[in-house]
Amino acid sequence: MGVSAAGSSGGSPDVLVVGGGLVGLAVAWRAAARGLRVGVVDPAPGGGAARVAAGMLAAVTEVKYGEEALLALNLESQRRYPGFVAELVEAAGEDVGYRECGTLAVALDADDRAELREVYAHQRRLGLPVSWLTGREARRLEPMLAASVRGALLAEGDHQVDGRRLCAALLTACGRLGVDVVRGSARRLLRAGGSPGGRAGGAAGGRVVGVRLDDGTELTAGQVVLAAGSHSALLEGVPEEVLPPVRPVKGQVLRLRMPSGAGAPGAFLGRTVRAVVRGVHLYLVPRLNGELVVGATEEEMGYDTTVTAGGVYELLRDAHELVPGITELPLVETSAGLRPGSPDNAPVLGPSGLDGLALATGHGRNGVLLTPVTADCLAEYLVSGRLPEVAAPFTARRFRRSGAPSAAGAAPAGPALREVVA
Amino acid sequence: MGVSAAGSSGGSPDVLVVGGGLVGLAVAWRAAARGLRVGVVDPAPGGGAARVAAGMLAAVTEVKYGEEALLALNLESQRRYPGFVAELVEAAGEDVGYRECGTLAVALDADDRAELREVYAHQRRLGLPVSWLTGREARRLEPMLAASVRGALLAEGDHQVDGRRLCAALLTACGRLGVDVVRGSARRLLRAGGSPGGRAGGAAGGRVVGVRLDDGTELTAGQVVLAAGSHSALLEGVPEEVLPPVRPVKGQVLRLRMPSGAGAPGAFLGRTVRAVVRGVHLYLVPRLNGELVVGATEEEMGYDTTVTAGGVYELLRDAHELVPGITELPLVETSAGLRPGSPDNAPVLGPSGLDGLALATGHGRNGVLLTPVTADCLAEYLVSGRLPEVAAPFTARRFRRSGAPSAAGAAPAGPALREVVA
Repeated sequence: MGVSAAGSSGGSPDVLVVGGGLVGLAVAWRAAARGLRVGVVDPAPGGGAARVAAGMLAAVTEVKYGEEALLALNLESQRRYPGFVAELVEAAGEDVGYRECGTLAVALDADDRAELREVYAHQRRLGLPVSWLTGREARRLEPMLAASVRGALLAEGDHQVDGRRLCAALLTACGRLGVDVVRGSARRLLRAGGSPGGRAGGAAGGRVVGVRLDDGTELTAGQVVLAAGSHSALLEGVPEEVLPPVRPVKGQVLRLRMPSGAGAPGAFLGRTVRAVVRGVHLYLVPRLNGELVVGATEEEMGYDTTVTAGGVYELLRDAHELVPGITELPLVETSAGLRPGSPDNAPVLGPSGLDGLALATGHGRNGVLLTPVTADCLAEYLVSGRLPEVAAPFTARRFRRSGAPSAAGAAPAGPALREVVA
Repeated sequence: MGVSAAGSSGGSPDVLVVGGGLVGLAVAWRAAARGLRVGVVDPAPGGGAARVAAGMLAAVTEVKYGEEALLALNLESQRRYPGFVAELVEAAGEDVGYRECGTLAVALDADDRAELREVYAHQRRLGLPVSWLTGREARRLEPMLAASVRGALLAEGDHQVDGRRLCAALLTACGRLGVDVVRGSARRLLRAGGSPGGRAGGAAGGRVVGVRLDDGTELTAGQVVLAAGSHSALLEGVPEEVLPPVRPVKGQVLRLRMPSGAGAPGAFLGRTVRAVVRGVHLYLVPRLNGELVVGATEEEMGYDTTVTAGGVYELLRDAHELVPGITELPLVETSAGLRPGSPDNAPVLGPSGLDGLALATGHGRNGVLLTPVTADCLAEYLVSGRLPEVAAPFTARRFRRSGAPSAAGAAPAGPALREVVA
């Protein structure tokens, strides 16, 4: 049960990332590229929600009223994607399925059309690059669309990437930079000065110094980044007022196989197609390798990742309504993942309010999209102690009631805003 | 490529069964139990349609107008099932999931009800053990049934068995009787006196002496049994007029998981439930181990075993109509198999018209049900040269036009009827 070191070169690393999913690996890679010694701990590195996700980079088509700050963050991450991917492909020597294909959001009936026109007006007011198509024009772009399509939004800047290949490439790139990836489950946060088995938080707990794993192993580090996705709220020893308010939101996803890759002449679908069917978001994301990802349910079921008859049924029913021709396609995989949902659908980034603990979680539906900006901002924060302005609205501090006791027992006002570059 | 022997004890076996699916293995086991030395050749022994099948033993609920001879065969095989299973379980030391649970065939609307009443009247005329239930009575038996159920037939003698476990047990039992199971693909029938590479049939071809495999190996035997299911018509070197008129009929099947086994108190379903939904046969077969098999599509797609989005969608849609509660159940497997369909939905049993070649194929939807009677009749035929009366209507001879040239070049009238015990 002694204190052991993460970092194969001996001694504690500068940073230990708890969570080796897409966000955790990207943070680790960017931090290592900035010269920090980095460890990652995860029971199944490269797993997590991104393995299930469709990988839509849909800043424009997913815009919602009143979420302008999140839109800015999403757009910034989307803007960084080509560079992020180019660097990663160079670093890992592996392709990641990034595809600049655009997205078509369609309306299936008159009510849908009226709602989509409102979204379109909102997007135009925000200056977003969208155009309106009639049903006929939409079918000209995508001949497999149902005859019932009444109109569509074309967002030519909403692209896609393959989350699985992204995770695989990040694992390779991390390995090449000497990041030490430990297979294990972090159970409890360790703090200096606090009794290891004592109650969480309070004046007894000092600076965060590492984590204890399920098997009792202790990993120490200069700073800890909590990037455990939907599992982020399960780490013990985190004071309640610091614990990220993140819950699992289950998504079931199908993978079909198209007759040929999405870029081929006469391809089944040329771009991402999405709609709201019976009030539920549905999307079909065609990959160049012929995979067609159909997603996704949104269910509040705790930590359940069961693929159910009902989930698969609804996805197939709604996808069939949107693109009737899918019935002929092989169904090659069904899966379910857990999005890390936050109270305001936005991520939780940067200082936690606890000295030595940073957060990179709560990305909800936008984890793949937000990976570059998250990784860049966290790396900057870990190196300089300052969180870039674009991420400033997204610290955990926004969830704290004013006048509530500070999260960190020792620091009177919490470091959250102090550490943000205003 | 010399002639090598099937049969590990050296020398040619008495019988070589081409096809190690359920029927082939059962024939091999019964023949070996009668004292014959037996070999089986199959690229994947224990595979085949029975691995996908629901394993309904539905002689009564599947009865069709004008198929009284087939009904007699089905009933005879159903009657033999308990003894067959008891012997097999004893011989193999493995359970096979045989379950005497009965079957409920339900009507979902007034039209269905009228049709099901006609089936019921027909079954009663034939003296079959069925009873009629109101919708309310049916739901009292099976509370998960849809509220729309208008009436039902209860066939208390239509049971089920697990085809996968049946195949596994038969492989064990065959092994214990010294049956030599060769992994390989039989490509061509070998006949004495004919040139091995020469054209099929004709006066040049004599008695069947074995098969040549894909890799050139030749397996010889005293008699060959063609039991290759949907692949039976692909064996080269079989004269066209002898070739069993068998085609693949694709069936897609789902496996869900019930909260507890079907025999448990408060079980999800207690018996097989079936219906005709939109003109298509649908059944839900609950196993004691908690597996719920939902089947099956019927598609004429050649040798394609792709699981398609449309196939899965239709099964889930129709099953949901019959038992709405399935939406909550985990979907654990999707698969597709190929039934060996014959022109009259009945199997092809016994003499082929070619000396030394017997047939046990073309079982269509009823392969699992017909396994005991097929195995018994083929074993009798292989030992004595006489096909038992119950199988007499099912020789290949019924497909030959009268006056057409005999199948076997040497035998003027074909041995088919001569060899049947009248």
